[in-house]
Amino acid sequence: MNIRGDIETRAREELFINLNPIQAGGRLTTEAMKAMISYGDGYSTCDWCLKPWRLDKIERPPIQEFHSNLADFLGMDEVRVVPGARRGFQAVVSSLVNKGDIVMVSEMGHNTEFLAVEQAGGKVREIPSNEKSVITGDAAKDKIENIKKEEGDFPNLIIADHYDYMLGNEHEVKEIAETAHEFDIPVLYNGAYTVGVKPIDGREIGVDFIVGSGHKSFASPAPSGILASTDEWTDEVFRTTEIKGDVSGRTFGVKEVEMLGCTLMGSNMIAMMASFPEIKERVERWEEELEKANYLMEEFLKIRGNDILSEMPRKHPLVKVDTRNSFDKIAKDHDRRGYFLYDELKERDIIGISPGMTRKWKMNPYGLTWEQVEHVAESFKDIARKYNLPVED
Amino acid sequence: MNIRGDIETRAREELFINLNPIQAGGRLTTEAMKAMISYGDGYSTCDWCLKPWRLDKIERPPIQEFHSNLADFLGMDEVRVVPGARRGFQAVVSSLVNKGDIVMVSEMGHNTEFLAVEQAGGKVREIPSNEKSVITGDAAKDKIENIKKEEGDFPNLIIADHYDYMLGNEHEVKEIAETAHEFDIPVLYNGAYTVGVKPIDGREIGVDFIVGSGHKSFASPAPSGILASTDEWTDEVFRTTEIKGDVSGRTFGVKEVEMLGCTLMGSNMIAMMASFPEIKERVERWEEELEKANYLMEEFLKIRGNDILSEMPRKHPLVKVDTRNSFDKIAKDHDRRGYFLYDELKERDIIGISPGMTRKWKMNPYGLTWEQVEHVAESFKDIARKYNLPVED
Repeated sequence: MNIRGDIETRAREELFINLNPIQAGGRLTTEAMKAMISYGDGYSTCDWCLKPWRLDKIERPPIQEFHSNLADFLGMDEVRVVPGARRGFQAVVSSLVNKGDIVMVSEMGHNTEFLAVEQAGGKVREIPSNEKSVITGDAAKDKIENIKKEEGDFPNLIIADHYDYMLGNEHEVKEIAETAHEFDIPVLYNGAYTVGVKPIDGREIGVDFIVGSGHKSFASPAPSGILASTDEWTDEVFRTTEIKGDVSGRTFGVKEVEMLGCTLMGSNMIAMMASFPEIKERVERWEEELEKANYLMEEFLKIRGNDILSEMPRKHPLVKVDTRNSFDKIAKDHDRRGYFLYDELKERDIIGISPGMTRKWKMNPYGLTWEQVEHVAESFKDIARKYNLPVED
Repeated sequence: MNIRGDIETRAREELFINLNPIQAGGRLTTEAMKAMISYGDGYSTCDWCLKPWRLDKIERPPIQEFHSNLADFLGMDEVRVVPGARRGFQAVVSSLVNKGDIVMVSEMGHNTEFLAVEQAGGKVREIPSNEKSVITGDAAKDKIENIKKEEGDFPNLIIADHYDYMLGNEHEVKEIAETAHEFDIPVLYNGAYTVGVKPIDGREIGVDFIVGSGHKSFASPAPSGILASTDEWTDEVFRTTEIKGDVSGRTFGVKEVEMLGCTLMGSNMIAMMASFPEIKERVERWEEELEKANYLMEEFLKIRGNDILSEMPRKHPLVKVDTRNSFDKIAKDHDRRGYFLYDELKERDIIGISPGMTRKWKMNPYGLTWEQVEHVAESFKDIARKYNLPVED
């Protein structure tokens, strides 16, 4: 039954094992779902909004307390929730970068980082990855020095992804931060793939900002995100308004300029709060998530011709594989072409692989039970056998 | 029962008649609620995201079609959904306003307009209201000429609120747009209090941009908003990315800079779509909503000492009243002080008035049935009688 007209009811998380590379960490908890039902109405979070009338100061429901607990959880001083990680990038970049300024990102950085820099009128310079597709502290240092030599100035900001979206490889964020600080360059840690799934301590990593994604890794609805800062930068990034009406004389109190006043309202805010206790628990199970991902990859490699493009062993469950020498060979002669793999998986209640892809593609078994991971591993091998691809015992 | 810990279950829309001034238009429809349940998981809208990988191009569910229908509905050429009206202001202001440029707003303009200008480094200049608290086309013209005379330049943009948030008065947006265009100044129509409750035709009003709020007036969850543009401005405001990685050589296709790539994802997007058919119907009942609001005000004025600060008759159900000479007199001697009015209303299943307020306060009966409006009117009179305030028959 459709929700309305041709808006179909979405039930893939209920009916299937979902391997979609970006959806795994954003599945709602039961409590977040309750929050959606209870706080769905527009300005639901504003029932008890009192002076100074700013969302993150609301005490009922305990939004203010959540902000403070979230800052502690991340080892940072201040936190704001934002409508998506990209709005966190934007707030920092807008505050620190003027027209023509340089932001150092990585060769594997996410498009939203580039767009935030473009929006602020800045320039990007990428740190190259090494032969293992890893961004190292040494590479960051070389790049900073090159930029200084060739363009006469240092970058105003470095955005460092802990894990990238392409391969899910781990990068040397701690070393990058150390190097950056030698040159007095602030560092924004992009934790879209970590905050909410892996324990993260901003103080230990030594970064100035942390950005996280609610809908990517915090079991929260879209759009939702996190921007955390150290005390050193709060006055700049969370600066309060100074504008004044020339006729009315109005000023706008403690509203924050980059936040455009209030931040993430409504059910998305409450869903993040509702998921938080489970988030705190699940980050402690990170190592087991990696065990499951590595088990799946070991089984996957038993199919002759299968290859893994991401670093091995996996340090993140997001993985990019290469099946040009296995499933793609089947696809060439199959009536359904590349869609055969999607069809075969779906028949086994597995979904989330890009339909039609049999060459290089991504998956993410995060959050599956051992039983589900075993079923996925068996299914890949079963499909291989069905089409006479050799499978190791 | 709480959702979790001290996050209480919110049921005020189910258990009470809610007069909250900003919550009325954002109550979800039944279909929007279904969308929340079905599409709550993080990247739920990305199941069928195909090339060119941009949210507003997705055909399943029919997000692209919704964008196109929404543009038609508003009499505009292009629409994007955004995480709140403020993000619509920001996109337009960022595109059109450089450091030091002037944006003309009104003396009754919303703080998010001011913040968007401040964020872009612009200056605000306010059009004064007349003795009836209305912003006229003539006042806009005078202000433009004054700015030119005193500051040597014209404003780069005018933001015109159709109805303001203070009194809910109607302003001369059509005349303001005409005047602005005589000076070749683009006009952003702020429809936070109209888009989704009243029929709005951007072509007929003659504006360049329309911004609407999903959570304020489109029966949608927060954050959600609408940014519409005429063809003349789409290349500027919805310009696509031109940034390029210096190492990877990457470019980012049709991602739009001000949108930071994809726009409003997840259940908030689908909820807007799910509410849209009912929105199209309910805007046609605008006149009846005004009848109900005016009926309520007429009854309210039967209590001696009550006054209405908004223009009368009401052209918008949001209204600001003055009860300093009625309920506030009771409050002075009441054990519960100003909270007595809140208590008395709550006892009659009415909620949404700011707790403690008995001087100047706002309410909004939008969307109530006639029976509910009559109950509210009777309740005010009943409370008045209980405390011996004279009430006309």
